[in-house]
Parts: sequence; structure tokens; C-alpha cells
Amino acid sequence: MTARTRYLLDEERIPTAWYNLAADLPAPLPPVLHPGTGQPIGPTDLEPLFPMALIAQEVSAERDIDIPEPVREVYRSWRPTPLIRAHRLEKHLDTPARIYYKYEGVSPSGSHKPNTAVPQAFYNKEAGVARITTETGAGQWGSALSYAGALFDLAIKVFMVRVSFEQKPYRKALMQSFGAECVPSPSSETEVGRRILADDPDTTGSLGIAISEAVELAAGRADTKYALGSVLNHVLLHQTVVGLEAMEQLAIAGDEPDVVVGCTGGGSNFAGLVFPFLGAQLRGGKNIDVLACEPAACPSLTRGTYAYDFGDTGHLTPLVKMHTLGSGFVPPGFHAGGLRYHGMAPMVSHLLELGLIRAQAFHQTGCFEAGLTFARTEGILPAPEANHAVRGAIDEALACKRDGTSKVILFNLCGHGYFDMAAYDEYLAGKLQDRDYDQAALDRALAALPAVAGE
Amino acid sequence: MTARTRYLLDEERIPTAWYNLAADLPAPLPPVLHPGTGQPIGPTDLEPLFPMALIAQEVSAERDIDIPEPVREVYRSWRPTPLIRAHRLEKHLDTPARIYYKYEGVSPSGSHKPNTAVPQAFYNKEAGVARITTETGAGQWGSALSYAGALFDLAIKVFMVRVSFEQKPYRKALMQSFGAECVPSPSSETEVGRRILADDPDTTGSLGIAISEAVELAAGRADTKYALGSVLNHVLLHQTVVGLEAMEQLAIAGDEPDVVVGCTGGGSNFAGLVFPFLGAQLRGGKNIDVLACEPAACPSLTRGTYAYDFGDTGHLTPLVKMHTLGSGFVPPGFHAGGLRYHGMAPMVSHLLELGLIRAQAFHQTGCFEAGLTFARTEGILPAPEANHAVRGAIDEALACKRDGTSKVILFNLCGHGYFDMAAYDEYLAGKLQDRDYDQAALDRALAALPAVAGE
Repeated sequence: MTARTRYLLDEERIPTAWYNLAADLPAPLPPVLHPGTGQPIGPTDLEPLFPMALIAQEVSAERDIDIPEPVREVYRSWRPTPLIRAHRLEKHLDTPARIYYKYEGVSPSGSHKPNTAVPQAFYNKEAGVARITTETGAGQWGSALSYAGALFDLAIKVFMVRVSFEQKPYRKALMQSFGAECVPSPSSETEVGRRILADDPDTTGSLGIAISEAVELAAGRADTKYALGSVLNHVLLHQTVVGLEAMEQLAIAGDEPDVVVGCTGGGSNFAGLVFPFLGAQLRGGKNIDVLACEPAACPSLTRGTYAYDFGDTGHLTPLVKMHTLGSGFVPPGFHAGGLRYHGMAPMVSHLLELGLIRAQAFHQTGCFEAGLTFARTEGILPAPEANHAVRGAIDEALACKRDGTSKVILFNLCGHGYFDMAAYDEYLAGKLQDRDYDQAALDRALAALPAVAGE
Repeated sequence: MTARTRYLLDEERIPTAWYNLAADLPAPLPPVLHPGTGQPIGPTDLEPLFPMALIAQEVSAERDIDIPEPVREVYRSWRPTPLIRAHRLEKHLDTPARIYYKYEGVSPSGSHKPNTAVPQAFYNKEAGVARITTETGAGQWGSALSYAGALFDLAIKVFMVRVSFEQKPYRKALMQSFGAECVPSPSSETEVGRRILADDPDTTGSLGIAISEAVELAAGRADTKYALGSVLNHVLLHQTVVGLEAMEQLAIAGDEPDVVVGCTGGGSNFAGLVFPFLGAQLRGGKNIDVLACEPAACPSLTRGTYAYDFGDTGHLTPLVKMHTLGSGFVPPGFHAGGLRYHGMAPMVSHLLELGLIRAQAFHQTGCFEAGLTFARTEGILPAPEANHAVRGAIDEALACKRDGTSKVILFNLCGHGYFDMAAYDEYLAGKLQDRDYDQAALDRALAALPAVAGE
């Protein structure tokens, strides 16, 4: 092997601006609508939930948005992250493809999530906010925001989907280690929570419910705002440091990607890697094949409807146009908790509609199999979410082998699996099964989509 | 902050040779003795357990020992590891000290252990070995060797201390993910194990017992060798990449350490960081203050006797001169399983006798407190073992604050704590207590030290 294994950048090379894909889109995003009036909402409608700086980013059409120096200062703790050439995986697969992965698991909470948790905490602190509420499923986002809260001296309250709270006590312990408060959702602390608990005291909870609780609490208190870990434009924007660094690192490697792969739950790690490359393509650069890998048990991009829907179960959020399985859809239990969301980021949904990306759904056992192959060659055990991207990248590399083509494949290894060992334990014991969603429940959830005039 | 946060080196800067402190010692190490004859053993006595290349390193007095290219090739997956300036911790402590840490948690198994697991696997593979047996306590070493075994296509069998096997199923799952076999020790697969189980079917096991089982199995099979994760000279040698890189990184930072700190269980991460600096001192360089931080519940350096003792409970190993609590000593349960060993590396023990290092014992709650301070400032949750070094470094930095001196403090953050969240959970819930060893049990264990002629 003469080519390098890890492409590192010094901290001076952390991007100075995030990249905003909205500036280069061939068609604008459909507007966000007020659920009562059906009219587009304005920035002030979002003010109870977010500081104005983040709202401005949410609606901005500027291409480059400066990263504040205090945020870059924190990024230095783990950024730039390494771009790694998967020499051993290539050899194991006996593929002519060249495989690179951007490894975001080196961050304080082990995934890409701190890329947006840190600026969100910064802008909230700047705006005089004392406390941030949020939801978390698998716990990746909750622990990232807990970390950011510790740095900017903000109180963090995390509503964690009850089934995860009980099954993953160690993620909770990590959030508490960073000084945050973590409560199981639904809780008795909100009206939404109390209503749902009254209906079903044994409910496992869901991401949609936890969002409703966090939003309700933030909307009701002047010193408290809300933070979301994916889906929204400003969250995806913050993640573009991933792709911007990867472009520079691939240039050092002397390669350009033919295929770019990411897993999609809400869409943020996918967007972070992909948007800068797609932007270059839209400005006249090389055409790339972009693959979104989603779970077959919660397939919003491949089986959802592109329609206006609520972001939460309690219907407290505005309406956004996205690929959705319906806000009432509850996916079956599977081990990539970070991908168990009924909707998809509007920006990612828009790209699929425009034909700029493609999507494929994967069952979990095939993803875990890919994850073990990766661990035994590359030495990193991926998070179950990331295994979807690993599966997608391996399948692309095997297609290259069949076709005798030597493509450059780039994927986002968005997090490590050290907090997900129970899932690996189950898989290794042969106890893990593929679970399909309930078609009748999906049909019901889609039939209940809100009616929007003119749609 | 104008100084950099992370000091990175490109993979070309991975050391080309390990540093052997034996070349610079002012007095040679006492010989290893055969327990039957009391005479120094020769290389062939060790041949049933280790390949000759490792035995040669064990007894070598050459200063620089070349790192084979295939080992450097694997090191590229995570080495050089970052040297990080603890800006935020310094600010939090309000200390004039400059604190740096070498972060080994970026490795495939999350600690410094792969630094030696990889060359041990390589040399065994070169010697035609098919299988390696080993022991593990907390699981750090077992998972590192499992990773290395996957890369070099060696079968790995890990005897894991039973209490850890049951309390830490996720470390076992990590070893299995890398393709290794992991059994609780004592097991019924060895004579030693069967004897101990017959005496006490409910025994929790110990590192000393697990070593005996692994050694017994390796000694009895021609295709099988044994590997140890600490204590021995060649293991400490392999870890010196840590200190060699740190010297280069500190030079880039324009600093020289005044105090160097590491935690000690068997001594390998401590040695890895410290030996290159001590070697430079012994060759006429700057005098440094070297602090070994050990657990108060298993204090071999501060409360043990410097004497010949067995490395294992079953008395299958040769006799080595070291600081020991007696091979029959069983420490109370505490959460830094990697530090629960009755002895200390002969080389580290020798340095303490020569007055070249000092040692201090710490109780675990103070260490966890330091670990949380570190997590909330630096964003990395240390392993419970590493917390001892964090505690030591923080105490040194606070002493600087009291005295108004601006020392440069360097410590080894030898691993992350993502597999040790149960311990943090207990600490956060206020359930963790400091436990002292049983003085009467220590007295009995020390009284039972083997008699060695002339000692």
C-alpha cells in the first residue's frame, strides 16, 4: 500500500463558513406553513422556539454562512475529522473500487451530532437563553447537546424516548456525565405527555412524542428554547463541515468521488457529507451518484408520500413538505434508533423530488453483517445507523467488482457503535430479525395526513 | 486562545523504532528466575509461550528496536494519536500550568492496548502460530488482541475474569464482533480452572487466575502461544510509540514537560508515555518529575514489597522481581478493572527503586470526580483507569495554582470510558464508595511470597 490511510487536516483548515445548498438549488424549497391558516409562516412565528440567528439561517439563501470563531474554537477539540481510505475493506472485498469514509465518531459524543449541537448552544447563549429542551431517540443527539450545554453553561433537558431510556441506560449516563437532565418520554411534565400517558400508561414513547414534549416546554417559558438534532435547514447547514472537509481531503488524495453514500433518518449526516458535493455539481462540476440508505422498517424516502405533514406526534410544529410516513406512524422496533423518524428533512426530500439523489432501503441484519465486516477489516465498530451507509457502500463496491469498474466511493461513517453493543450482542447470538412495518398502520397514518389547500 | 488545541502528526511520522529503556538504565534489571531451580531462565524456557522474536525483545539491551513495516501499516489506522492541549480544563481550574494529554482512546479498541496487540499478533503469525490465548480483566486488553487477531487471521481465545464477564457483557460483545472467543474464567477448560471451581464454584475469578488458564492452554499446544497485555518488557517496549510521538508533538508546541503522569496497573500505558522522556533524562537531558498514579485499593507501588513473585495465581509463570501485593492477594472490587493486578511491571518497579519515578495512590471517588470535570471541559469521558491519571494531573495543576508556578504537565489519557458507563451511572447516583483493601489479607499474601535463595 503506497497510498495513505488517513487524510488529516490541521485545525487551521476547519471551514470558516458553512455551505448553504439553498443558494444553488434549481428550484426553491416549498414554504413552511402555519397549520391553522395554511399560510407560509414568518421568522417571528418561530421565535418562541429558536433564537433569531438560527431562524435567519433556516431561511437564508446565502451560499456561505460564517462559522463564529467561538464555534470553530470548540470544533478544534475533534475537527477536522479524518478521511480514511478503507484499504483493508477493499482488499477483503477484492474490489477495484477505491473506498473512502469520513469518520465522525471521533467527536465527544461519538457521532456527527456535535457539529450542530455546538453552534445551536452558542447562538442560544448569545441570545441570553438559560435552558434548552430537546428530544432524543437512540441518545446520540441528546448526548451531543448535553456536551455543548456543558461548554456554554446552559441547562439541558432531554426527553428520551421511553423504550430507549430503559434499554440504553448508558446513553442517559453519558448525558448526565455532561451535566444534563434526562427524563423518559412521555413524561408527566407536559400536557402532551400527560394526555398520552392517560391513554396508554405503558406506551414505549416515540421520537414524535418526545419532540412534542420538548416543544411544549420551550414554548411556555421565556428563558427556554428548543433544539432539534436533524430535519431543519439550519441543522443540515451546520453539518456541511463534514463534506467541506472531505472535499479538501479527497483533493489531497488526488481523487474525486463517483458515488457518495450516507444513511438517512432525519437526514442530517447525509446532508452534511453530500450537500457540498451536490452544490459543486449544481454549479457545473462533476456529476455524482448520491445514495441515501434508509431502514426498510421506516422507509420515508422509498415508501413515504411527499406531502405537508407535522414534525411531531402532538401536532405542535408547523407543516413542512417532506417525504413522510405520517406523523402518526410508529415504526417497529429496530436497532438504529436514530433512523426511527416518520419524516425526512425537507431539503433532502426536495433533492429526491428533483432527481438529484436516489434512495434505497435496507434490512437491519444485512446492515449488521456489513458492520462486522467493516469492524474486522477497518477496526471500527459502526453505530447501527451508520451500518446502513456501510452496507450501501459495500454493495456499490461489490457492483464495481462485478462490472470491473473502479469507482471512487465515499461514505459517511457518522458514528461508532460503542453504546449499541446490546444490538451487536443480539446479532451475534443470532437473535436479531428483520422487521417490516405494518402496511395497514402505514396506510392509516398516510390517510391521516393534514389537508393543505392547493396541495 | 492562540496556541493550538490538537497537535497532529501525519502517518509518515509514526516512529520507525520502539525505544528500549534497558539501554539507558543506570543499573540492570534483576534477572527472571526459574521457580524450581531459583536460577535465571534463558530464552528457550519461554519458547512454549512466546515466539522467539518477542523473547529476543524481552531480553534486548539495544536502544532502538525496528518496528516491522506491516505493524506500522496497521498503526496507520489510528496512529499517530493526537496530543491535546487542555485549554478548557486549564481555564476551569484557573491554573497557570499548561496541561497536555496524549489521547490513546482513538484506537480500534479504545485504549493504548492495540499498540502491543498488533506487533504481538504480527510476530506470532510470522512464527506460524495459529492461535493465541490471553486473559482480560476489564476487557481492554482482550478486545485489543481480538482486533489484532482479526487483522492477522489468528484465532484468539480470551479468558475473561468471571465477574467482569458477567458485569460487562458489552466488552465480550466487542471481542466477539472482532471474531474472538471469550470465556469466563475460571473455566472448566483448564486444570487450574477446574481445581479452583472445585474449591469455590461461586468464585468471581481474578486476573491472576485467568493468566494461569491462558498460560496452561498455550503451554500444552504446539500451535498455540500466549500473549500478555502488560508487565513484560516487550509489552512496555511496544507502548513507547506513545511517548516518542508525544516528544515530537510537544516540540512542535514549543514545550518541554516538567511533570509526566500516568496511571499504573501492570504499568504499560505509564511506561509507554514515560520511558522515552526518562531515557532522554538518563542520557543527560532535562530532569522530569514522573508520577505513577495507582488505585488505593490495589496499591502495589506504594504498599507492596519489592520482591520476587509469580505473575499468576496458579504459579505457572517464572519469578520476576517487582513491587507486589502477593500473587494470592485479591483486591476489593472497584471500577478500574485494568488496575486490579497484584504486581507491577519489573521495569517500572526498578525505576521506583532507583528513585527515578514517584508513586501515589488515589481512591476511586476522587478519580471519578476528576473524570467528570474532564468530560465537562475537554469533552472526553475517560476510562476509570485513566481517571487516576486525570486526578493526578489535576492535583499537580492545582498545586501550581497554589504555588504560582507555571509547570508543563503531560499525562496519558490511555482510554475512553464508553464501555464503563455502569460505573459512571453508579457514581452519578451517589452509590459508589471508596473501598480499602483488607490489611490482614495483604499481610497473608505478602507472607506467602516465594522464598528465593540470596534474597
